[in-house]
Amino acid sequence: MTELDPAAGHLTLINTFDVEPNRAEELLAVLSRATEETIRHMPGFISANLHVSRDGRHVANYAQWRSQADMDAMLAQPTARVHMREAAAIARSFSPIVYDLREAHAAGAAA
Amino acid sequence: MTELDPAAGHLTLINTFDVEPNRAEELLAVLSRATEETIRHMPGFISANLHVSRDGRHVANYAQWRSQADMDAMLAQPTARVHMREAAAIARSFSPIVYDLREAHAAGAAA
Repeated sequence: MTELDPAAGHLTLINTFDVEPNRAEELLAVLSRATEETIRHMPGFISANLHVSRDGRHVANYAQWRSQADMDAMLAQPTARVHMREAAAIARSFSPIVYDLREAHAAGAAA
Repeated sequence: MTELDPAAGHLTLINTFDVEPNRAEELLAVLSRATEETIRHMPGFISANLHVSRDGRHVANYAQWRSQADMDAMLAQPTARVHMREAAAIARSFSPIVYDLREAHAAGAAA
């Protein structure tokens, strides 16, 4: 299970795909297969968490990497690039943004 | 610590704020205070996880709620609305999207 812990120091990549609702499940399947077959075996990969919006118009990947260098190395891999082109061909557009997790707040306890 | 578990059945709200880089920390502080003082005490709140992008142009809140009804009740609360207006006044724009977490993939183990 993925844990969100600001103290872990992971890089967080949130990639939000806009998609036609009738293609959301197809996009989910492509991202799932890319993660299982290729990306999760790469150095520095921590987790990928795939979401489908309730209106079917968005698919989001909340992914954790050890470092920017590890993520950059993945992005340069030919096998990863094939998967990304496949996902890009299904989505209308996508927006990858690299974050640091700064705070985690839970119900009934301080951050 | 926040756990991402598809079997938990939580609703996920990813709210992505666009912001001028010199106001990212101010927006983070407003969202942090709103969460601590108000939102985390509301029924059905599970977690809020605040991120700042490495380029300073985005702040993202990855929040978990028990249900759509709980989140809707929060959105209708006057105290929550005051905090949202405060955040909206600092951000250039924001995009809240409601998701279901479908898959969590970890390094070296099946989903």
